[in-house]
Amino acid sequence: MNWGTIDKYAKSLIKEAGHKIRMSFFSSIDIDSKADANDLVTNIDRQIEQFFIQRIQRDFPGHRILGEEGFGDEITALDGVVWMLDPIDGTMNFIHQKRNFAISLGIYADGIGMLGYIYDVMNDDFYHAALGEGAYYNDEKLPILENTPLENAIIGVNASWVAPNRRIENEPIAKMVHTCRGTRSYGSAAIELAYVSSGRIDAYMSLRLSPWDIAGGMVIAQEVGAIATNMLGDKPELLGQDTFLVAKPGLHETILSNYIRLK
Amino acid sequence: MNWGTIDKYAKSLIKEAGHKIRMSFFSSIDIDSKADANDLVTNIDRQIEQFFIQRIQRDFPGHRILGEEGFGDEITALDGVVWMLDPIDGTMNFIHQKRNFAISLGIYADGIGMLGYIYDVMNDDFYHAALGEGAYYNDEKLPILENTPLENAIIGVNASWVAPNRRIENEPIAKMVHTCRGTRSYGSAAIELAYVSSGRIDAYMSLRLSPWDIAGGMVIAQEVGAIATNMLGDKPELLGQDTFLVAKPGLHETILSNYIRLK
Repeated sequence: MNWGTIDKYAKSLIKEAGHKIRMSFFSSIDIDSKADANDLVTNIDRQIEQFFIQRIQRDFPGHRILGEEGFGDEITALDGVVWMLDPIDGTMNFIHQKRNFAISLGIYADGIGMLGYIYDVMNDDFYHAALGEGAYYNDEKLPILENTPLENAIIGVNASWVAPNRRIENEPIAKMVHTCRGTRSYGSAAIELAYVSSGRIDAYMSLRLSPWDIAGGMVIAQEVGAIATNMLGDKPELLGQDTFLVAKPGLHETILSNYIRLK
Repeated sequence: MNWGTIDKYAKSLIKEAGHKIRMSFFSSIDIDSKADANDLVTNIDRQIEQFFIQRIQRDFPGHRILGEEGFGDEITALDGVVWMLDPIDGTMNFIHQKRNFAISLGIYADGIGMLGYIYDVMNDDFYHAALGEGAYYNDEKLPILENTPLENAIIGVNASWVAPNRRIENEPIAKMVHTCRGTRSYGSAAIELAYVSSGRIDAYMSLRLSPWDIAGGMVIAQEVGAIATNMLGDKPELLGQDTFLVAKPGLHETILSNYIRLK
């Protein structure tokens, strides 16, 4: 397998998809008159996923594709090469903001993350990594992350996990929120993973993510020394939904040991 | 008073300040070796405020300035013309992310907001408004906001107000979080006000903001029909800290009546 070639191919494909998404905003006036905004977006989500799938199937016929919109393969085991794709991560932002969404792609070989990409389409910010070769923000190599104590940390955590909910004890999360320096929520798991990897925030957590939300970001995070696990401290599930916590190394341990109590 | 002239002057001054802030990132390597990151930032905050003050005092000697860094005038009453300035709103983002911060400026005459500006410096996104003349995102006129029911709303609310705290009952806020479509937190009151005004989110709330955080944004919000009050439903205090809620008209009433219970 020539991973260098696949890497170049994937980057080019993602940039082309990003261009298609940006162009879709120009034609939205016509389309808005025929269907409501949610249908429109579903269409673009689907079109972009189908664009990826057609290309990958044509050019890498042995590879399989796990996509959010469900046009790819039915994946029940991770043998061989699997492309895990979210064509538009942060769909709600896409609809309401026309920004703060990303294309997320991870390419895995027998369950090992080989290549990872997060493309913040409207900012033209491209985060990418290849296993063992470091991670990049556009052309700039990202430094290995240094630890940050919780007291100085900015944590990506949505308000819904601080409110009482059926997945996690919210009182310890509330304590964490008051102990850390600040919290943020951007509405895109891929962008928050990219932010952790580039040191813009120090941790990110969610109680329910799918493989395509995290597959690309995990390769990038690993290359800068971030720890990405589910909330049991294990490798996140890549065949179904799972909890998720990514953070700088010591901070990951602090949060997992002291503030996470799953129901 | 020629408000058209003041408007042109203020826009030019803000753009120049934004340029200075962007340039400061290029010299940060030198400065980092002499002082820690927090000192560096405090210096830039201060330098930018002093830049504004020197220019305004020179060119509008009768006007007064209320600035976050405290180099302006001591303001105990709102008579005459008062420039309310936050040179860098979202300082934590400025330090950690080098993005997602804004210059926020409101120019008030006898307590009435005449001109408002929010400049998202790194995105080069400029939100501005003049009383009675509509609001703009760059050169594009912003439409009057239409109401959105809470169930479809995206609300800017920080996790710290969903956790138990000494300012507001958190259970009703937790209910609101579960009822609305989603929540976000960007770490800059000015940017969240700009997002409400441009329809990217539907409401934003905070339990403790200062006049310079909201002065510019309130002029912009008013021009697109958003309602901005404190959490008692009154005009927010412009001489000290206050609670704050800005939202689309019906949504403002829904949130204020059903989910806000101050302690």
